[in-house]
Amino acid sequence: MIQHTVLAVTDTLPDAYQRVRSWTGQICASLETEDYVVQPAADISPPKWHLGHTTWFWETFVLVPHQPQYRIFHDDFSFVFNSYYESVGRRVLRTQRGNLSRPTVAEVYRYRAYVDEAMTRFLSTQELTPELRNLIELGLNHEQQHQELLITDIKYMLGHNPLFPEIEMPVNEHRMDQPTLPVKLPEGVYTIGHQTESGGFCFDNELGAHKVYLNGATLSGQLVTNADYLEFIDAGGYQQFQHWLSDGWAWVKANQIEAPLYWHRLDGQWHAYTFAGLQPVDPDLPVCHVSYYEADAYARWRGLRLPTEAEWEAAAVDAGGHHLAWGLRWEWTGSAYLPYPGFTTAEGAVGEYNGKFMSGQMVLRGASVATPEGHSRPTYRNFFQPDKRWQYTGIRLAVS
Amino acid sequence: MIQHTVLAVTDTLPDAYQRVRSWTGQICASLETEDYVVQPAADISPPKWHLGHTTWFWETFVLVPHQPQYRIFHDDFSFVFNSYYESVGRRVLRTQRGNLSRPTVAEVYRYRAYVDEAMTRFLSTQELTPELRNLIELGLNHEQQHQELLITDIKYMLGHNPLFPEIEMPVNEHRMDQPTLPVKLPEGVYTIGHQTESGGFCFDNELGAHKVYLNGATLSGQLVTNADYLEFIDAGGYQQFQHWLSDGWAWVKANQIEAPLYWHRLDGQWHAYTFAGLQPVDPDLPVCHVSYYEADAYARWRGLRLPTEAEWEAAAVDAGGHHLAWGLRWEWTGSAYLPYPGFTTAEGAVGEYNGKFMSGQMVLRGASVATPEGHSRPTYRNFFQPDKRWQYTGIRLAVS
Amino acid sequence: MIQHTVLAVTDTLPDAYQRVRSWTGQICASLETEDYVVQPAADISPPKWHLGHTTWFWETFVLVPHQPQYRIFHDDFSFVFNSYYESVGRRVLRTQRGNLSRPTVAEVYRYRAYVDEAMTRFLSTQELTPELRNLIELGLNHEQQHQELLITDIKYMLGHNPLFPEIEMPVNEHRMDQPTLPVKLPEGVYTIGHQTESGGFCFDNELGAHKVYLNGATLSGQLVTNADYLEFIDAGGYQQFQHWLSDGWAWVKANQIEAPLYWHRLDGQWHAYTFAGLQPVDPDLPVCHVSYYEADAYARWRGLRLPTEAEWEAAAVDAGGHHLAWGLRWEWTGSAYLPYPGFTTAEGAVGEYNGKFMSGQMVLRGASVATPEGHSRPTYRNFFQPDKRWQYTGIRLAVS
Amino acid sequence: MIQHTVLAVTDTLPDAYQRVRSWTGQICASLETEDYVVQPAADISPPKWHLGHTTWFWETFVLVPHQPQYRIFHDDFSFVFNSYYESVGRRVLRTQRGNLSRPTVAEVYRYRAYVDEAMTRFLSTQELTPELRNLIELGLNHEQQHQELLITDIKYMLGHNPLFPEIEMPVNEHRMDQPTLPVKLPEGVYTIGHQTESGGFCFDNELGAHKVYLNGATLSGQLVTNADYLEFIDAGGYQQFQHWLSDGWAWVKANQIEAPLYWHRLDGQWHAYTFAGLQPVDPDLPVCHVSYYEADAYARWRGLRLPTEAEWEAAAVDAGGHHLAWGLRWEWTGSAYLPYPGFTTAEGAVGEYNGKFMSGQMVLRGASVATPEGHSRPTYRNFFQPDKRWQYTGIRLAVS
Repeated sequence: MIQHTVLAVTDTLPDAYQRVRSWTGQICASLETEDYVVQPAADISPPKWHLGHTTWFWETFVLVPHQPQYRIFHDDFSFVFNSYYESVGRRVLRTQRGNLSRPTVAEVYRYRAYVDEAMTRFLSTQELTPELRNLIELGLNHEQQHQELLITDIKYMLGHNPLFPEIEMPVNEHRMDQPTLPVKLPEGVYTIGHQTESGGFCFDNELGAHKVYLNGATLSGQLVTNADYLEFIDAGGYQQFQHWLSDGWAWVKANQIEAPLYWHRLDGQWHAYTFAGLQPVDPDLPVCHVSYYEADAYARWRGLRLPTEAEWEAAAVDAGGHHLAWGLRWEWTGSAYLPYPGFTTAEGAVGEYNGKFMSGQMVLRGASVATPEGHSRPTYRNFFQPDKRWQYTGIRLAVS
Repeated sequence: MIQHTVLAVTDTLPDAYQRVRSWTGQICASLETEDYVVQPAADISPPKWHLGHTTWFWETFVLVPHQPQYRIFHDDFSFVFNSYYESVGRRVLRTQRGNLSRPTVAEVYRYRAYVDEAMTRFLSTQELTPELRNLIELGLNHEQQHQELLITDIKYMLGHNPLFPEIEMPVNEHRMDQPTLPVKLPEGVYTIGHQTESGGFCFDNELGAHKVYLNGATLSGQLVTNADYLEFIDAGGYQQFQHWLSDGWAWVKANQIEAPLYWHRLDGQWHAYTFAGLQPVDPDLPVCHVSYYEADAYARWRGLRLPTEAEWEAAAVDAGGHHLAWGLRWEWTGSAYLPYPGFTTAEGAVGEYNGKFMSGQMVLRGASVATPEGHSRPTYRNFFQPDKRWQYTGIRLAVS
Repeated sequence: MIQHTVLAVTDTLPDAYQRVRSWTGQICASLETEDYVVQPAADISPPKWHLGHTTWFWETFVLVPHQPQYRIFHDDFSFVFNSYYESVGRRVLRTQRGNLSRPTVAEVYRYRAYVDEAMTRFLSTQELTPELRNLIELGLNHEQQHQELLITDIKYMLGHNPLFPEIEMPVNEHRMDQPTLPVKLPEGVYTIGHQTESGGFCFDNELGAHKVYLNGATLSGQLVTNADYLEFIDAGGYQQFQHWLSDGWAWVKANQIEAPLYWHRLDGQWHAYTFAGLQPVDPDLPVCHVSYYEADAYARWRGLRLPTEAEWEAAAVDAGGHHLAWGLRWEWTGSAYLPYPGFTTAEGAVGEYNGKFMSGQMVLRGASVATPEGHSRPTYRNFFQPDKRWQYTGIRLAVS
Repeated sequence: MIQHTVLAVTDTLPDAYQRVRSWTGQICASLETEDYVVQPAADISPPKWHLGHTTWFWETFVLVPHQPQYRIFHDDFSFVFNSYYESVGRRVLRTQRGNLSRPTVAEVYRYRAYVDEAMTRFLSTQELTPELRNLIELGLNHEQQHQELLITDIKYMLGHNPLFPEIEMPVNEHRMDQPTLPVKLPEGVYTIGHQTESGGFCFDNELGAHKVYLNGATLSGQLVTNADYLEFIDAGGYQQFQHWLSDGWAWVKANQIEAPLYWHRLDGQWHAYTFAGLQPVDPDLPVCHVSYYEADAYARWRGLRLPTEAEWEAAAVDAGGHHLAWGLRWEWTGSAYLPYPGFTTAEGAVGEYNGKFMSGQMVLRGASVATPEGHSRPTYRNFFQPDKRWQYTGIRLAVS
């Protein structure tokens, strides 16, 4: 079973810090210098930026306020590597990140080493308050989120290069799991959300375990496969407005969408870009890189629907003796990303973490083959705009 | 008490048809010919278009399929007056509606008279099947929706004219109601949605009465007033990112928003455009013409929140002896517009009515001073994108 | 022969004023009220706006400064009807002109009548200084320019209406003239520009008669006809980048251009919208409503070129015994619109008239069937951006 | 005196090839790998792209058609490194060049080495036809054009980086020359354009020496300096519409322009980015990095004007015993970029070289501190859109 926290049972904080930071480096191990720099779309950040930004997080939120003798590495890096924190000063516009050749990759790695050394010293010599421990656990989880983004951003960059380069990447894109039986949820009251007494880390948006009333549903025991999805394509699904949300249909037309992201039809056969280059689409794999619009249209075309996030969580935790197997794809739910009852934001910059994005996005549940170990749990609420599909997103069907 | 259906108890269908159609004309009674033509923004439709489109609805969905000897008024009007029905052929792009000087207003009124005569004959000489009665009731409600849009679109057009014209309009924009006591909803299971057995019309999106679990809330007995809202403005609410959703803050900055729609500061005093021209803002009136972003930011600035649509409906129907007074403003809820359990779309063009808009919009509940009589009920689900504010929208606060 | 000035030999100023103002009304005589209001593209102004703007010109530049007891008609009309004069205060953005239903058409006509009465009194009771006479002559020519724009803007509005309305318009779109022999210009020095001593009105951009050296050219005695141009279309001219300027090719692709403006292929036959409705394209008429990009591409496809403005003027005035017949189409030249040697702008708002547009536009020479009588002369420099084609533009070929 | 051709008197073709290609490498000698990749604006190309594109030129136009046994380096590089040649197949959109991390810089240098070796062999073993010699000379000049773009693109990239990096670059940005006396051109006939009999390379757009009539002008013997230009800024030149072309004023407002490119006011003092980092503006240097709009506005503010290209060339060649000193800045002229009399385009891809850009651009004359040695001559016609200013552009004034 997946270990549902970044801090393994036996971990000390310095060990966990070292393990997480090291994984970021392993993801980038096979990159060429040039690969660190490029931003082929506004949503994509250059790997160099991820490396700097996660480091800036430690420097800004841990070392500067809590380590009195700490000297910051470079005066201008805060400007360069701040992401969206309005409370922490100016920042390079997100769309401009790919315009910066400097600092160089080597400098960014020096920055990482400098901060790592300071952090290691800080973590080993301090008796940490609970608040500080929480902050550090947040930082580790923040870095893990960027690890998954690193993978998907690198894939986007290379997958949009006409040379379709191959690269070593510690992600098993071909993983398949045994399907389970469908999970039947009888009508009734369920509890969802993170149960604080159970311990373990969670983000603020998972807090507030609360009751929901489910009107009864059955969730498929397996994800929609490429073979399933090809039937939709072959039946003309992308040409028929009936299956689509109005916004989705506008998106299809404006972007001339006719297949999942990374798919190309070569000599009559569908191929998909993977880290091993362009490969024929494997019919048995769960479909990947679909938007919410596509997931919703596919479900409607089948006469079915997507599960809500509450149904998903109920089915993932325990449901009459068995539960969903999950973790291959981020699964689009039919739920908008909105606050749980009693949700409040923390004071200061950390409070900008999740709450301010609760508009215009849909919830995804589960995890994907690109999710770092120890960074998934059934209460995790991931979220993206309905047109986004560069994450490892997939489809699970439900019926009332 | 508001009559919760377009068909009054004593109405025959021909009477109801005549009454509803006539009200459309009364809304336009004081317009100049020029006022029928203009489209000052993509969301706004020229009054002429509303008059033609609602007429086209009757012609296309009732007369053509069900009245064999009916001859359509003009071959090209379907192209001109179709709105968004993908299944009914080509249409003038929404943004181009204001580019059409022809057909003239007089022709459109002839079109209305022609169709009204045919409809009146049809309704009085036929024994209508239940399906046809339902279709006609849908048509009446459809026309009522456009009546409210007529009013708000006319207001937008005149309120953006540098001459700020006064006009007679059968809307009491200054109506105030007695506030009620707050409504306290204890934690527990509630039922929301249209109860079919209770009879009366509803839209497809209200169908499927179902249980929800509410975690306990208290809803304010009165709407936020202009005086309340001015405190937010004076406290710098529009200049402080902390209160805003990320999308909302981007909207504020991009559009330089600093007050509700139609507000202008003249010689240091806030004025608002009304059908009586520019008037000083009345502090006692419920605030009007705010977006979801503003409603949400205001609530957060107060340390409170917006009610969910389930809370709103529970409080509107009956809640321990009393219920909310509502009907002055469309009240933004904190709920995204999504399908109820078991929601399905009808076959054909009518099926495009509501379901395909279930993405990217927020639910508003209640009704407004511009809502036609007989067109409101506690289960009604109105919906708009979170930046829209040309409807008579307002704010009610809730607390857990 | 065309009378080359707005002031006919026998005209008094009051007569000329009355005659020009009256012609504006005749152009609009068959319009429906709705036709006055619409702005289907940014370049097009609603007829109502032209009527108001030309009136505002007289009020602002003649009556207010020179008629002490004059009282302006309406305080806000300056804001509404100013066009681009930066020195005369705020103005409604050009793209917003079609959003204004008020002032009504009737009010605008009252405004015209009010100003006409004041102007008539002013012109008949004053001994006018030469400066004032010049200003009034400028105003008359300004109104004539808007007369041609009125015609072309009305055509654009009706020609983009799916009903393709017919309308009475005092323009003979089917006029054909006898072609002349080609005009051969031997190499040598020529003089172009308005010769002040010859008298008569001209715009500031024509002033400064000066010598140019022409390297020898022959200009066609007739304009390119529809039959000629259809050969270009049929030969795939719109599909072959070779003939096009880089900007022109981008324009063709972005706008999917495949024929002149107003052309539609119905049942395999090309039709063009005229004020008599959609009509089969007459092969003998000079091609009309082409952009500079199209004119240039057509010429290159023929292995020829467009004349320069100096060549055109030399050939129009006198060239070895005969000269060009012109006046059916505004003829694109291969010359950019730039100042003549010694060009200077006048002080004040009138100085904004022509000079500030000397960037990014091409010169057209001649006149068209829509040009008012008395508003053309061989030195006239018309100018538009190279993609514009809603004027009555045509093509004359030249060869070195 | 500047050597007016890439082929020095003593050069053999292989020597010239080697010298030019080597200079490209010297320009890039101090770049970090990351600097090769970035495209901070649509007009800017990544250095990597310039290196590849110039190499692709040799491969595509010389080796593939003329060296039978040549094998192309990589099948997909044509797609990656084609620029705008419509006749040579698909190409990466210009705006996407910065999205490509691959091929790597090392691969591109291998590509250069591979092609250089093949070219060297080709040049030394062949008896070249005159056509081939011309093609190779065109290729050398093409590469030199990209050398100047390399310098200006690198400056743009680094000058828009918040770290304002310093870099070694073989450009003397601080070069100043002795001013000359003003050059007075009497009215009369002059000849401009490349005189074929004089020998030496020129581009197709310079061909066709022909007579022009100049109406008399005096050109300043020195360029406008930073001190001069600061007077314009300090007098409010950027805030006063009167001095600006209409398009220029729109550009100033839309882009909030208030100084030349690269200028920043720090603590009340103007600084400019140079390859030596941010430096205080040197009042004695010729102003640099101004657009045509700025050059024109400055001249008008002084009550003067820009020279035409014919005036410039006449004054640069010989004018009553002395001539202009030039070469520090590309000097904006008041002439639009249009064909000379008799201009024709060559067949095939090479014919796309210059002619298709003859729309919407202004001519610049002279050369700049970034122009490669041997790549300038008085007949050279450079051209850019009027808002462009990332080249080393400057201002020379004229008076009639």
